[in-house]
Amino acid sequence: MTASAENIEEEVGRVVEDAKELQDMVANHISKTSSEEQFLRQRALSLDSSIHRLRSLLDSLLSHKLLDLKLADKLDEDLQKARCIMVDGDIASLLPSNVQGRFLRMFLGPINVRASRKDVQLKVKEEYNSYRDRTALLFLLFPSMLLILRSWVWAGCLPAFPVQLYQAWLLFLYTGLALRENILRVNGSDIRPWWIYHHYCAMIMALVSLTWEIKGPTDCAQKQRGVQLFLQWAMMQGVAMLLQNRYQRQRLYTRIALGKAKRMDVVWGETAGVDGQLWLLCPILFILQGFEAYVGLLLLRTAFVGVVSEWQVIFCGFLLVVMAVGNFVNTVQTLMAKSRFKAKMRRTKSKQELD
Amino acid sequence: MTASAENIEEEVGRVVEDAKELQDMVANHISKTSSEEQFLRQRALSLDSSIHRLRSLLDSLLSHKLLDLKLADKLDEDLQKARCIMVDGDIASLLPSNVQGRFLRMFLGPINVRASRKDVQLKVKEEYNSYRDRTALLFLLFPSMLLILRSWVWAGCLPAFPVQLYQAWLLFLYTGLALRENILRVNGSDIRPWWIYHHYCAMIMALVSLTWEIKGPTDCAQKQRGVQLFLQWAMMQGVAMLLQNRYQRQRLYTRIALGKAKRMDVVWGETAGVDGQLWLLCPILFILQGFEAYVGLLLLRTAFVGVVSEWQVIFCGFLLVVMAVGNFVNTVQTLMAKSRFKAKMRRTKSKQELD
Repeated sequence: MTASAENIEEEVGRVVEDAKELQDMVANHISKTSSEEQFLRQRALSLDSSIHRLRSLLDSLLSHKLLDLKLADKLDEDLQKARCIMVDGDIASLLPSNVQGRFLRMFLGPINVRASRKDVQLKVKEEYNSYRDRTALLFLLFPSMLLILRSWVWAGCLPAFPVQLYQAWLLFLYTGLALRENILRVNGSDIRPWWIYHHYCAMIMALVSLTWEIKGPTDCAQKQRGVQLFLQWAMMQGVAMLLQNRYQRQRLYTRIALGKAKRMDVVWGETAGVDGQLWLLCPILFILQGFEAYVGLLLLRTAFVGVVSEWQVIFCGFLLVVMAVGNFVNTVQTLMAKSRFKAKMRRTKSKQELD
Repeated sequence: MTASAENIEEEVGRVVEDAKELQDMVANHISKTSSEEQFLRQRALSLDSSIHRLRSLLDSLLSHKLLDLKLADKLDEDLQKARCIMVDGDIASLLPSNVQGRFLRMFLGPINVRASRKDVQLKVKEEYNSYRDRTALLFLLFPSMLLILRSWVWAGCLPAFPVQLYQAWLLFLYTGLALRENILRVNGSDIRPWWIYHHYCAMIMALVSLTWEIKGPTDCAQKQRGVQLFLQWAMMQGVAMLLQNRYQRQRLYTRIALGKAKRMDVVWGETAGVDGQLWLLCPILFILQGFEAYVGLLLLRTAFVGVVSEWQVIFCGFLLVVMAVGNFVNTVQTLMAKSRFKAKMRRTKSKQELD
């Protein structure tokens, strides 16, 4: 036996010992960390319920006029501050999150997608915003290209393949958006459930439209009327998305600066904040929703009048109408919530000036 | 001002103080935990490289015959043990994982899907196995139902809708499997990359087949010959999946018991272990792969002979052939790796007996 052979025996023995020791240290570290976390979580939960209790106590004292208004405003602000510390800082990761829904479980299994650090959560949110920016651009370019080629190259009749490519892209896009928004929700975003359902509907529509033969034996222009309208609507949608993204970012940063929002808030297709742009965005949104319903009804009409009798046409028409109505209701609700909030702010302000 | 109003002022002040204090505690906890983790990770990495160094030193000593064989076997076993402690215990979460690939980023964004605890990782793996079990059953039932209805109810001609429903289900299924397998990979599974690529191919095929009109003006039986073969192949695939799942589970548990595998190993469509069943599984796998290639070639032939000239037929035929070849190559490679491993084990054993 050589010297190096003797050496190796010793070294291997040491490595095995080291591995055992390290395993114990890591197991120790994990159990210690998790018990500390448990303790901190307990405190966070009790603090959270204290804030809720005091908030309702404050409201009831105010309604019975048992409290000076100026003091009430100050206390209200203090509670707001405490709440902000809780949800915007590291404590947030200890509070229970939105449950991981069926959609994520269906695609990903039981893996946990909640980020444990606030900075990671914010990175996810940032990436979502820039994903939407890139997407909006494609959302504008893809249908415009199809429509331009249609009149200049394809002589008024779209070939099936590029349209199907576009539909497959839509399916992929909406699946990605729905997954990402569900992940944001788990990470504490306040996104309205409707905007996620909306993407489920859009996924189904993209899937159904893939099975829909757009080039039939009958007159091409008549058969493709629905597709053409849909592409025009998609172009408008692209413009609206670009405007919205710009608006939402500004609003989000404003609200973060004011300490009024949790930074994980995502609002898609709705509004509250930078007033000047709102007057541009709102009409565009309503026109889009109207146009969406119009395309839907037109599809339904072509199906019932008997030009095109495939079930896909009826189904897509129906879905478009449902989505338009849902979008409209949710936009109006958001605007109403916003105006209530502003009225309250004004009231508080004028009271303070009176005092 | 009433007594309860005085109370509330005090309480709100305390809540704000508590929130600040808790925020500091949590921030502290996080930074302490992460620096401890950093220290432990450093040790884990250096231990890991020591094991690698000793392993190659051992090999070179052996090849120069500078080491007693019996001692070499013992040292080999010890190093194996150290490695097992590292990858099967809590230390595993500190070692760098497989990078999160493009596929996951595309659908989910930059969210981290790595479980930090070994027990959670194992739960993910368990759930993946039971998902595959449920899936295999549907994989068998869905096409058999279609084929039975075809001959008994639909008089030999499949209607488009149920077939498209089946194709949409396949698309969803393969997307889910690809996402889950990517997640398993990030969590330290050794799944062969080919089986994931295979699911990407299957996803694309399902998507393409959705756009493929199966009911044309020409003779139904001839046009649907490919679809019918595909459904028959899918049924066989279902049976094979059920057998494989059973086999894989047993093998995994055996290997865990022997301490020879990291428990995150997933092997899909391939083999190593419980010999009795292997002789049943192997022929079935090869027959399946042959049949897959046959269906692919048949689709290509119908396309080139001119019965059906859609590009989807050529594309699906080509993909099926690629998948069959890839599956065959990977199965053979796995079997060869397995037989090498067994030969080595036999050699070691007979040497020990000689000694």
